[in-house]
Amino acid sequence: MKFVFGVDLGGTTVKLAHFDGEGALLSKWEIPTVTENGGAAILPDIARALEQYMARQGLDRSDALGIGIGVPGAADEKGVVASCDNLHWGRLDVKAELSGLTGLPVFVGNDANVAALGESWKGSGNNCANMVMVTLGTGVGGGVILGGRQVCGVHGAAGEIGHMVLEPKEQERCNCGKCGCAEQYCSATGLVRLAKRRMATTGEKSVLSAIEPLTAKDVFDAAKQGDACAAAVLEQFYDYLGQLLANICCVVDPEVIVLGGGVSKAGPMLLEGVQAAFGRYVYHASRSTRFALASLGNDAGVYGAAKLVLGQ
Amino acid sequence: MKFVFGVDLGGTTVKLAHFDGEGALLSKWEIPTVTENGGAAILPDIARALEQYMARQGLDRSDALGIGIGVPGAADEKGVVASCDNLHWGRLDVKAELSGLTGLPVFVGNDANVAALGESWKGSGNNCANMVMVTLGTGVGGGVILGGRQVCGVHGAAGEIGHMVLEPKEQERCNCGKCGCAEQYCSATGLVRLAKRRMATTGEKSVLSAIEPLTAKDVFDAAKQGDACAAAVLEQFYDYLGQLLANICCVVDPEVIVLGGGVSKAGPMLLEGVQAAFGRYVYHASRSTRFALASLGNDAGVYGAAKLVLGQ
Repeated sequence: MKFVFGVDLGGTTVKLAHFDGEGALLSKWEIPTVTENGGAAILPDIARALEQYMARQGLDRSDALGIGIGVPGAADEKGVVASCDNLHWGRLDVKAELSGLTGLPVFVGNDANVAALGESWKGSGNNCANMVMVTLGTGVGGGVILGGRQVCGVHGAAGEIGHMVLEPKEQERCNCGKCGCAEQYCSATGLVRLAKRRMATTGEKSVLSAIEPLTAKDVFDAAKQGDACAAAVLEQFYDYLGQLLANICCVVDPEVIVLGGGVSKAGPMLLEGVQAAFGRYVYHASRSTRFALASLGNDAGVYGAAKLVLGQ
Repeated sequence: MKFVFGVDLGGTTVKLAHFDGEGALLSKWEIPTVTENGGAAILPDIARALEQYMARQGLDRSDALGIGIGVPGAADEKGVVASCDNLHWGRLDVKAELSGLTGLPVFVGNDANVAALGESWKGSGNNCANMVMVTLGTGVGGGVILGGRQVCGVHGAAGEIGHMVLEPKEQERCNCGKCGCAEQYCSATGLVRLAKRRMATTGEKSVLSAIEPLTAKDVFDAAKQGDACAAAVLEQFYDYLGQLLANICCVVDPEVIVLGGGVSKAGPMLLEGVQAAFGRYVYHASRSTRFALASLGNDAGVYGAAKLVLGQ
């Protein structure tokens, strides 16, 4: 029986999964990511883990359709990674190296794009060919799927929507060095920053002022409990996020926008707030764009990696 | 010999062109666009013009690979147009109707997307598969080409980059009903608006204040002649345009951005100003994105339409 491996390479652990030729997830496991020594052991470790798995399961390697892998960095269409800071990698031809180690075909993508591909295929996208996934975590990431395929970009930077400039007059700098990036407002960190900034400038009373360290979840919780300052901060957050998503629609006009990452745990409350703000900024033709919460959680990466193999 | 027709349907004239099967332009001509009566005569007029041309040239219709047509409105992937205000059309299945009238395969696209496809194929894109074309005219239009294919969008609104919101605090309204759209700053009209706004608020002396009606070209000319107010207005214009183009790169990360439309007649001066501003807003990975001026002029539409037939 034909089979596929999906690999989601993160800075701490590597998630590996075995799929059948139809894309059903049969088994998954993890190994640690060893970043010492310029991350030199990472690909050999993955190759060994897959070899051992095949031996243990009695899988015939001639039935392997290939290995898909999502990496935490910009990957071009040839499977070459420019650099992955988290893995201590410089430029690396991941496709050639992993293929050389395993003798199997290898397909490479950026982790955010690959997770988007997974969600578009088996998650909230529900086999949707035109989708944008936005990951609201410590930063803001994204992946663009058009015609059922990940859009990589010529420099591997497609879907880097956290660095869309929403506020050219911003004075504080984003981690990328620019000012006014979406990530400074629409991430978990950005939401906390908006809350602290509001408390510092308005002097408003709020339950948030007593919380240290303040988290995005605290802001959502306080707003739910009627804290006016938290509610105003959330409105500001929704407004930036609505502008970001509407601006994305002007470029690629997807069918569905899927929200993932830690902030998406706020659930329906987040969806409702974002959709209202989106309505204020979206070009009329794209008004009916659908919204959904990501549904595959940590498995989005291995699903998308398998999809790289099974044909986008 | 195999051949193709490319049609660029505008509000005043229809441009028609005959290409060989390799995409060489052999002949082109125009007919008027008759918009009376809900634009009912438009497609029959086009069909008749092509039939007459084939008869006159002794072309064998079995050699025709098809007709490509760009229309001034949102066209979905099935060739159905939602509405074209300029043509007085409501919803119309252009593909089915024109195919029924001619007995030939028909391929339909939005005019801005189709012009972008033409530029990416035979113009400044120089066979570039990943390109964004930005048309700076009365409004701001755009077309996104990825993998050598036009991106239509699920609602036909991909490439509607003129309606990306750059300035959420803007008080004046864009024609689309929203506030702060790129079109309010980056079009010929937008540039004039920026100039008038600056003169009204600063009271600065400028040669521009004596010119009525003021045009975008006047602003470029005055800046070239050392008018400080015009130069400051142009800087503001470049800044908005740089932000717009950098924001597009965050989504699709193209290889080349091609600038077309009336404002692009400002030439190298425009390119230089925009690239400097782009550098301030672009995410570092996309920093090497190339810029070019459109080179096909009014022929971009018929070239792109032919390319729709010849396979994107």
